Amino acid sequence: MEGYGLFLVLLVSALLLGFLSVLFALVWVFHYREGLSWDGGSAEFNWHPVLIITGFIFIQGIAIIVYRLPWTWKCSKLLIKFIHAGLNTIAMILAIVSLVAVFDFHNAKNIPNMYSLHSWIGLTAVIFYTLQLVLGFAVFLLPFAPVSLRASLMPIHIYSGLLIFATVIATALMGFTEKLIFALKTPAPAYNTSPPEAIFVNTLGLLIVIFGALILWMATRPHWKRPPEENSKIQQPNGGTPEGTEEESTMTDCSNTDKSDVEFNSEAAARKRNLKLDEVGQRSTM
Amino acid sequence: MEGYGLFLVLLVSALLLGFLSVLFALVWVFHYREGLSWDGGSAEFNWHPVLIITGFIFIQGIAIIVYRLPWTWKCSKLLIKFIHAGLNTIAMILAIVSLVAVFDFHNAKNIPNMYSLHSWIGLTAVIFYTLQLVLGFAVFLLPFAPVSLRASLMPIHIYSGLLIFATVIATALMGFTEKLIFALKTPAPAYNTSPPEAIFVNTLGLLIVIFGALILWMATRPHWKRPPEENSKIQQPNGGTPEGTEEESTMTDCSNTDKSDVEFNSEAAARKRNLKLDEVGQRSTM
Repeated sequence: MEGYGLFLVLLVSALLLGFLSVLFALVWVFHYREGLSWDGGSAEFNWHPVLIITGFIFIQGIAIIVYRLPWTWKCSKLLIKFIHAGLNTIAMILAIVSLVAVFDFHNAKNIPNMYSLHSWIGLTAVIFYTLQLVLGFAVFLLPFAPVSLRASLMPIHIYSGLLIFATVIATALMGFTEKLIFALKTPAPAYNTSPPEAIFVNTLGLLIVIFGALILWMATRPHWKRPPEENSKIQQPNGGTPEGTEEESTMTDCSNTDKSDVEFNSEAAARKRNLKLDEVGQRSTM
Repeated sequence: MEGYGLFLVLLVSALLLGFLSVLFALVWVFHYREGLSWDGGSAEFNWHPVLIITGFIFIQGIAIIVYRLPWTWKCSKLLIKFIHAGLNTIAMILAIVSLVAVFDFHNAKNIPNMYSLHSWIGLTAVIFYTLQLVLGFAVFLLPFAPVSLRASLMPIHIYSGLLIFATVIATALMGFTEKLIFALKTPAPAYNTSPPEAIFVNTLGLLIVIFGALILWMATRPHWKRPPEENSKIQQPNGGTPEGTEEESTMTDCSNTDKSDVEFNSEAAARKRNLKLDEVGQRSTM
C-alpha cells in the first residue's frame, strides 16, 4: 500500500479523535449536565448527543473507511461488505434511539417537535441514511442486482454516504449551538461569558470536525482504495473490473485463504497491476 | 463532454439555488429584520448573513466549478486559473467585510466576541481559506513552482477547497440557528412556535445545503474534469500529464485560438484520448 505509514498515522489519529469525542460527550452529560436516564427529563434528552456522537458520527466514520484498512484486503470483499453494512446498521439504530429520546423529552416537557433547522436537516439525514442502507443492502449485498446496475450506482452510493456523513456532523454542530444557548442562561452563566462548559463543548465540536476531515481524506484517496478481487470473473473489455462489480470470491473470512501470509509489498504490486488495467473513471472515488 | 445534458441541468439548478439563497438572505434582512446600514446596530450585523451567503457560499461555489464549464475548455488554463483565483479573492473580501460587520456590532453593543462554536469554526474557515488562496496563488498561478510540487499539492488543494466550502456551509447553518434563537424571543413569537421568519430561514438553510451538495457532486465527477492542455509540453513517462502540471498554453483568452469553433464532440474525443494516457491517481478528483 502506497503511503502505508501516513495511512496508519491518520487512522490512529481518527480513532483517538473518535474515542475522545465519545468521552467528551460522556463528560459533558455526566459532569456538566444531568447524566443519563429514561424518565422524560433532561437526563433522557442527554442520550441524544451521546448516541449521535457514538453511533452516527464515530461508528459511521469507521464504517466508511472499513474498506481502506489494508489488513482486510486479505479477507473476501463479501465479509467486508457485511462489516460495512453491520456498522452502518448499528449507527442507524443508535441514531433512531437518540431521536426517540428527544421526541420523548419534548413531549414530556410540552416543547414542540421539528421546529428548528437542526431538526429539519437532522431528520432528513436519518431518512436518507436509512434509504442508503436499504438500497445498499439490496444492490450491493444481495446477489440479484446486475453488474451494470452496481457499477452505475456505486459512485452515487459513495457520494451520498460521504455527503450524509458531512451533513450529520454539520447537524451535530447546530445541536451543540442550540443546547449551549438553551442550557447556559440565567441562573447559569450565559454562553457568551464563555463558562467552562461552553469551552468544553466548543472543543468537542472542533474534535468532531477534525475527525470528519480525516475520515473524508482517507475515504477519498484513490491510492488507498481496496484493490479489486484477484479471482474476479467478470472482466471489462480492457481487462479491468469496474468498482462494485467483482464477483464475490469464495473466501468468507480472513484465515482460510492462501493469501493470508502475503506481505503488503506484494499486495501493493498486485494492486498497481490491477489499477493500470482498470477504467480510469471507475477507479476514482467521488 | 459525457453527460453534458445532466451537467447543464445541475449547473442551472445550482445557479438558481444560489440566486434564490441570496434573494432569501435579502428578504430576511429587509422584510423580517432591520435592513442594511453601517451604524453599529442590528442593520450592520445584517451585512454578515448577506455577504457570507453571497460571497462565501454562492461565489465560492461558482469558483469551485469554474474549471468544469465545458465552454471554457477552449480558453487557456491560465485564464481560467485567474477567474478561479479572482472569484475566490472576491469571496474572501466579502467574508472579511462580513466579519468586520459582526465585530463592529458586538463591540457597539458590548457583546463578547468569539465565544460561540459558530465563531470558532467560522474564523478558522476564513483563516484556512485565506491560506489556501495565498498558497494556491504562489504554487499554481505564479510560474516559479516546480512541476513536481504542483502535482503533489494539487490533491491537497482540491480536498482543502471542498472541505472549507462544506465547513462554511455548516458554519452558516449554526449561524442561522443562533440568530433565530436570539432574535425570536419575547415579545416576538419564539423560534419553537415556528413563526413565518423561522420557517423562511429554515428553508434558506435547506437551499444552501442543496446548493452545496450540487457543487460538490459537479466538482467530484472525474468525467467532468477539464481535459489537459493539448499543447502540453511536460510529458509523463507514460505520455500523460499530471493534474496541475501542464505548461500554460500561449492562449490567453477564448477567441484568439484556432480551437474556438471546435465542437464538444471532438473535444470529448480528445478528452477520452488524454484520459487514457493520464496517470490514474492524478486524474481522479478527491
